[in-house]
Amino acid sequence: MASTIRKDALVVFSPSGKRGRITTGTTVLQAARGLGVDIDSVCGGHAMCGRCQVDVIEGELPKHGIDSRADNLSAPGNVEQQFLVGDGADSGRRLSCHAKIEGDVAIDVPASSQVHRQVIRKEYEAHDIDLDPVVQPCFVELTPPDIHLPDGDLQRVFAALRRDWQLDGLTCSLRAMQQLQDALRQGDWQITVAVRKNREIIAVWPGLKERLYGVAIDVGSTTVAAQLCDLRNGDLLASAGKMNPQIRFGEDLMSRVSYIMSNPGSERQLSDVIRRTVNELIAEVAANAGVEINDIVELTLVGNPIMQHLFLGISPIELGRAPFKLANDASVDVRASELDISINPGGYAYVLPCIAGHVGADTAGVMLAEMPFERDEMSLIVDVGTNAEILVGNRERLLAASSPTGPAFEGAQISSGQRAAPGAIERVRIDRHSLEPRFKVIGCELWSDEAGFADALPNGVTGICGSGIIEAIAEMYLAGIVLANGRIDGTQAERSKRIVADGSVHEYVLADDDRRISVTQQDVRAIQLAKAALHAGVLLLMKERGVDRVDRVRFAGAFGAQIDARYAMVLGMIPECDLDAVSSAGNAAGTGARIALLDRKARPLIEAQVRNVEKIETATRPEFQDLYVAAMAIPQRNFPDDNG
Amino acid sequence: MASTIRKDALVVFSPSGKRGRITTGTTVLQAARGLGVDIDSVCGGHAMCGRCQVDVIEGELPKHGIDSRADNLSAPGNVEQQFLVGDGADSGRRLSCHAKIEGDVAIDVPASSQVHRQVIRKEYEAHDIDLDPVVQPCFVELTPPDIHLPDGDLQRVFAALRRDWQLDGLTCSLRAMQQLQDALRQGDWQITVAVRKNREIIAVWPGLKERLYGVAIDVGSTTVAAQLCDLRNGDLLASAGKMNPQIRFGEDLMSRVSYIMSNPGSERQLSDVIRRTVNELIAEVAANAGVEINDIVELTLVGNPIMQHLFLGISPIELGRAPFKLANDASVDVRASELDISINPGGYAYVLPCIAGHVGADTAGVMLAEMPFERDEMSLIVDVGTNAEILVGNRERLLAASSPTGPAFEGAQISSGQRAAPGAIERVRIDRHSLEPRFKVIGCELWSDEAGFADALPNGVTGICGSGIIEAIAEMYLAGIVLANGRIDGTQAERSKRIVADGSVHEYVLADDDRRISVTQQDVRAIQLAKAALHAGVLLLMKERGVDRVDRVRFAGAFGAQIDARYAMVLGMIPECDLDAVSSAGNAAGTGARIALLDRKARPLIEAQVRNVEKIETATRPEFQDLYVAAMAIPQRNFPDDNG
Repeated sequence: MASTIRKDALVVFSPSGKRGRITTGTTVLQAARGLGVDIDSVCGGHAMCGRCQVDVIEGELPKHGIDSRADNLSAPGNVEQQFLVGDGADSGRRLSCHAKIEGDVAIDVPASSQVHRQVIRKEYEAHDIDLDPVVQPCFVELTPPDIHLPDGDLQRVFAALRRDWQLDGLTCSLRAMQQLQDALRQGDWQITVAVRKNREIIAVWPGLKERLYGVAIDVGSTTVAAQLCDLRNGDLLASAGKMNPQIRFGEDLMSRVSYIMSNPGSERQLSDVIRRTVNELIAEVAANAGVEINDIVELTLVGNPIMQHLFLGISPIELGRAPFKLANDASVDVRASELDISINPGGYAYVLPCIAGHVGADTAGVMLAEMPFERDEMSLIVDVGTNAEILVGNRERLLAASSPTGPAFEGAQISSGQRAAPGAIERVRIDRHSLEPRFKVIGCELWSDEAGFADALPNGVTGICGSGIIEAIAEMYLAGIVLANGRIDGTQAERSKRIVADGSVHEYVLADDDRRISVTQQDVRAIQLAKAALHAGVLLLMKERGVDRVDRVRFAGAFGAQIDARYAMVLGMIPECDLDAVSSAGNAAGTGARIALLDRKARPLIEAQVRNVEKIETATRPEFQDLYVAAMAIPQRNFPDDNG
Repeated sequence: MASTIRKDALVVFSPSGKRGRITTGTTVLQAARGLGVDIDSVCGGHAMCGRCQVDVIEGELPKHGIDSRADNLSAPGNVEQQFLVGDGADSGRRLSCHAKIEGDVAIDVPASSQVHRQVIRKEYEAHDIDLDPVVQPCFVELTPPDIHLPDGDLQRVFAALRRDWQLDGLTCSLRAMQQLQDALRQGDWQITVAVRKNREIIAVWPGLKERLYGVAIDVGSTTVAAQLCDLRNGDLLASAGKMNPQIRFGEDLMSRVSYIMSNPGSERQLSDVIRRTVNELIAEVAANAGVEINDIVELTLVGNPIMQHLFLGISPIELGRAPFKLANDASVDVRASELDISINPGGYAYVLPCIAGHVGADTAGVMLAEMPFERDEMSLIVDVGTNAEILVGNRERLLAASSPTGPAFEGAQISSGQRAAPGAIERVRIDRHSLEPRFKVIGCELWSDEAGFADALPNGVTGICGSGIIEAIAEMYLAGIVLANGRIDGTQAERSKRIVADGSVHEYVLADDDRRISVTQQDVRAIQLAKAALHAGVLLLMKERGVDRVDRVRFAGAFGAQIDARYAMVLGMIPECDLDAVSSAGNAAGTGARIALLDRKARPLIEAQVRNVEKIETATRPEFQDLYVAAMAIPQRNFPDDNG
């Protein structure tokens, strides 16, 4: 039993190094808060959540002038011991809300108990994510109500949040207000509230609620994707994708805008369709992860300007005609229910800002995932979709533009083209002598010339996807089938029966089993036009930025993840640079949405950076046309051909 | 033509007396803003709204050392002259946004051009209302958009509001965001936005929109009332009332709560019913005044705690059982659409705070209308409905309580009782000698003993309302028919056939033509119980406040407006005081809602006062029972009987 006489003890926290003299009898958690050391806690010191576990560093620490001893903390009581055993905590750990300081002690706060810890990044991600979500679960316990005190129940909750969580001046969502009294009585005066931005109670649950969830949405013209995250640790619990059903109103963005222009009022319909898809995806990821939709308290969203506007219920008509004005170029933070989005009814949707009429919140997501504005190196970041969004710059100046590549890189407008899906050719090699091809198909590990290939493909080879057509044309060029000006050389028909005349032009037959899959002259022209647009955009930005080479190239998007940098360079999609400096950024727009979900600081950061970035409108630049024409040819580069 | 050389001129504004030296060429409106003189304007200086009209004071003003001359302002241009003629303005008036200062001048800002002018009060209202609504229309004009500038249209509107209206850091409602681009193009780059609390754009219209409207709602257990106001001048444009259709779930509040308790989930239904009624009333007042519902941008609401909770979608169950806890005792400020209320979709609903479990936002409305907390005199304010809400105090201390009078004062639980409606007896006189009655009926100017009375009543006499029963019993007492203990004196049957035996007790027959209308012994007992509860509550608060008399008595509510103070005092409903000090406050709760609608400063004021007011729970005070029993008898007061 500790002495009841209060005196001071020296307490040191690691890894922060914060230290101070603390009155004995104080809990480690209180001491930490007093010294500005963040220790995680949901229950606010009720030994219910187990998140405030700490280790004692035993022994003399000359640097701190302290002889730290584990028994300078109060002995673990029943509650604490039971909890630590029950939750399978490491032996020796203590609950900082229950362990009282009785003498000098050095306390280590393990990573798992730190509030602003980092989420381990995926291999293609550019940086770690700080975990600091906008919504925080706070457990409070009230005394039963007293008829002699007139305060409303909400006011008693506010008082408890002030006392236990130092949260002041809070408001409360209508929905939480409606559920409060029931939750209090169900939880026997213990509840957990979800507090957003330290400002508003958005939701309430009876008893202790430890896990809250968020969902990051990436709305593309073609596909819509959702990632469900645990806001406690940043874990990605489930992800799912769906085709964007707006495709029935038009394959590409501009045809959807045309549809709206000729069918006034139909923007409602397109908004409803996209919101319904988002709701279906939320339901899907929640079901896959075994999470209640009501426990999802925050949503973030990226998308191109037209998708972002439609999701917000804003007609995209003005984005389809000059001068291509965004209704709003700032972020939007709005209750999800206002958008008919089904998460917790008090939850919010944060939609990242658009950059310009043709450069959307998806590019803001890419910026956030890649943070070129924090690097000294000169970055070129390309997000290839129906259009290519291009970022060039570094911490000093960053430029953004959109270049009208059209959908050829996605396999559209290609004779045998298809989306990247099982059955699509994605890798191509052509023998320099025999001009015979071999290829790989999505969904199969074997090359087409390996034994068992045919049997491994139940539906055969169905087409060629974006990365496949890039490789095919680059290999055709390297094998001499395609000339630098893009023409398929008919004289090569003498060397191989795969080069076939079609009127005055020729095509190259990749496969001719159940389906004939060939690269036609028109396919080469389509890819030339697309890559010229991309390259011209990149060169325009580099020129504006005043650089003639970049230090690193990042390909974002699904196409970017598939593409082989080597072939991108052969075709002249990107400027010449060290091949090792070219890499995939994965679905960086989606990663950006996830960062905005997990780290509240990312929001003002990207809002400020989006304002700072210099917007280049390629359409209004006369030099763009010259660059575009010049970029049509396949460059004569001194490129090592290792497939010879 | 004025000289183009800039120099200073002395400008004096009345009635503020503000003065200063202004560079010539400055408009009067700019000069006023520079000197801190508020002149009204919607169009922000575009000569479109005509609200900034001023007069020039001609002649020497020795006090100001100025020789003011009308021709020291620039001559009225075409725009200004046309506008002033077209709008029928007084001759000599100038538009301050167009008149430029060219020499010394004294400017009078007439009341109609002042921003924070006062609304003329109604005769029963306690004080004037400052006109300073939370929503302000702001006209802005943009330049057509430029493809070279990437700003969104909303950001261009924000910039114009910063420039022309000094409004910074604004947000925008989703709905206004959705309508913005269309409004800008329809209005040829001129729009009016509704800005709420200098913080949020809640709505947008193409072109100039001068008039915005608000609606104040008073939700009673029995009736629901709406007042539609012009936010430009505070005018009450239309008002309407409806029965509260919740009556089908229970006549009084507690039976409605019981209904919900025994039908879980039915609180939804009761909320829907009350919200639908509010929507119907809004539609009705809007139609009566020829106002578009979309032009109503703000709603305020008062109601007792149960009605307030149900309107907010909060179950009132906890208000129906000890310890009678409000879910929330603060005001609620929420988008009206969250409550399914149909005004402009960006508009808000402000619900006044409740005071305690039995003292609601309606009493907060009464407080705001009466402002006893700003007076030196000791006020007693009584709002008699199904319960009586009582306020006692002055600027030093104010106390509030609710007393369970039951609905007898509203004519319920009275044998011939009915609500105050045409056909109901509201005034009664009894001849002291013959014991013959005469009475007045709602909807007829004649007394019952005057010629033509019977013909003036198509449906005859239908019953007796709250004020009628008070007068009847008081007159019966004064005529000796009722004894001090409340017993109807059977021996008086010898004097008049109007006193009729009914078993062991007697009744007094007021009328017996097509319907028999009498005051029974049970009616007297019901009124005795009600008035005893009221009187006991008043005495308890006076005792707590440490006073044995009050300086003024105000009766709020429909019943309060009808009641004759003389008879209220005869029966002992209120403590003895000078009859002249007793008056009606009209529907003070509704007036409070209207004040909160018209004057934004009223909101923090009432929120603070509601926190300050001392809440007395009569049910938990043992002395209340004693006071209650003691208040049953009719007091032996030395009361001048002028009906003898």
